[in-house]
Amino acid sequence: MEEREISQAVIGRLPRYHRYLGELMADGVERISSNELSKRMKVTASQIRQDLNNFGGFGQQGYGYNVKYLYNEIGKILGLDQIHNMIIIGTGNLGQALANYAAFGDRGFILKGLFDVNPRLQGVAIRGVQVRLMDELEDFLKKNQIEIAVLTIPKTKALEVANTLVNNGVRAIWNFAHIDLNLPEDVIVENVHLSESLMKLSYNISRYNGEHEKN
Amino acid sequence: MEEREISQAVIGRLPRYHRYLGELMADGVERISSNELSKRMKVTASQIRQDLNNFGGFGQQGYGYNVKYLYNEIGKILGLDQIHNMIIIGTGNLGQALANYAAFGDRGFILKGLFDVNPRLQGVAIRGVQVRLMDELEDFLKKNQIEIAVLTIPKTKALEVANTLVNNGVRAIWNFAHIDLNLPEDVIVENVHLSESLMKLSYNISRYNGEHEKN
Repeated sequence: MEEREISQAVIGRLPRYHRYLGELMADGVERISSNELSKRMKVTASQIRQDLNNFGGFGQQGYGYNVKYLYNEIGKILGLDQIHNMIIIGTGNLGQALANYAAFGDRGFILKGLFDVNPRLQGVAIRGVQVRLMDELEDFLKKNQIEIAVLTIPKTKALEVANTLVNNGVRAIWNFAHIDLNLPEDVIVENVHLSESLMKLSYNISRYNGEHEKN
Repeated sequence: MEEREISQAVIGRLPRYHRYLGELMADGVERISSNELSKRMKVTASQIRQDLNNFGGFGQQGYGYNVKYLYNEIGKILGLDQIHNMIIIGTGNLGQALANYAAFGDRGFILKGLFDVNPRLQGVAIRGVQVRLMDELEDFLKKNQIEIAVLTIPKTKALEVANTLVNNGVRAIWNFAHIDLNLPEDVIVENVHLSESLMKLSYNISRYNGEHEKN
């Protein structure tokens, strides 16, 4: 498929389309109009059409969307038809939560390694993958082709570890450390800053309170 | 402070300003120009000025920003000067990770309760808060004023639990369940859909691969 430059806002909405289409498939729905999809997802039908037109459309006039076909096509756009070897650095609660999330494996994200600084975790297995200590990381990366590293470690160590990862061939980092990683431009970084999300929530509470005081 | 309707994009950037200003304070920096802040944060100085102008500015020509003052003011806008009583529903790995995150308490998010369906977790204490079983939830909500509930439970149960929360006075939900909650409009919901974030990462890997194949 020819790809133009697609805005990150559109990309950000694709996983949600994928999720709704997956649910429709599970419900046995074979096709859906953009109006119906729009009602379910609470976005306008024109938004849906515009978003999908970025990738060539997929819809047929008067027929709507073939649910399974659209699900698969969006999956391909998202790279879910590929295998992505993944390691998790930091096997605390958050790292374990991510390691235990079976759906990642179903979508091609294959957990190949777990790492931690804590010797008490060494050898503990999560979903059949044993925790290794950090001093094994470089050697492990040289022997295994790892595409994605998940960083669930404190921010003080994050940049140093990220550099080790990148220098040993890791191309993408899913970063939960509360820091912006300054890495070479060809490294793909996706940040999840949980406390920033909580602050947005708290902003919206304050704003709501403020509006109600005025009334 | 008078508030106009501020876009969620601007709000989404405020926690990051807050974080950088906090780091500057920790480094003993007392004031900073928008140009310097711009270099550190890798956003344009005009973006910074525009964002902050939404709230009245804060800068002085030729002086720049007073770091501590700006940190505190942004904190107030984000509601971090308020106390927010919080409970976590779902005390698996993710719930425990969030319960253990000390920085939330420092910012006024006070953990008041932990709930789970698993009887083996009953009475287990995390940061001094004991896990209760779900059948105690309603009674707990009637006796305690809880503003924020964190949902780290499977999506199949999320809407039912969310309705119980809202019917018992909870006003804001930090939702990690992989579902869009259809709740009354005055309930504030902030979603963290982790698998959608991972899909964005994988999209960007695929796009990068695609571009390199073309060259």
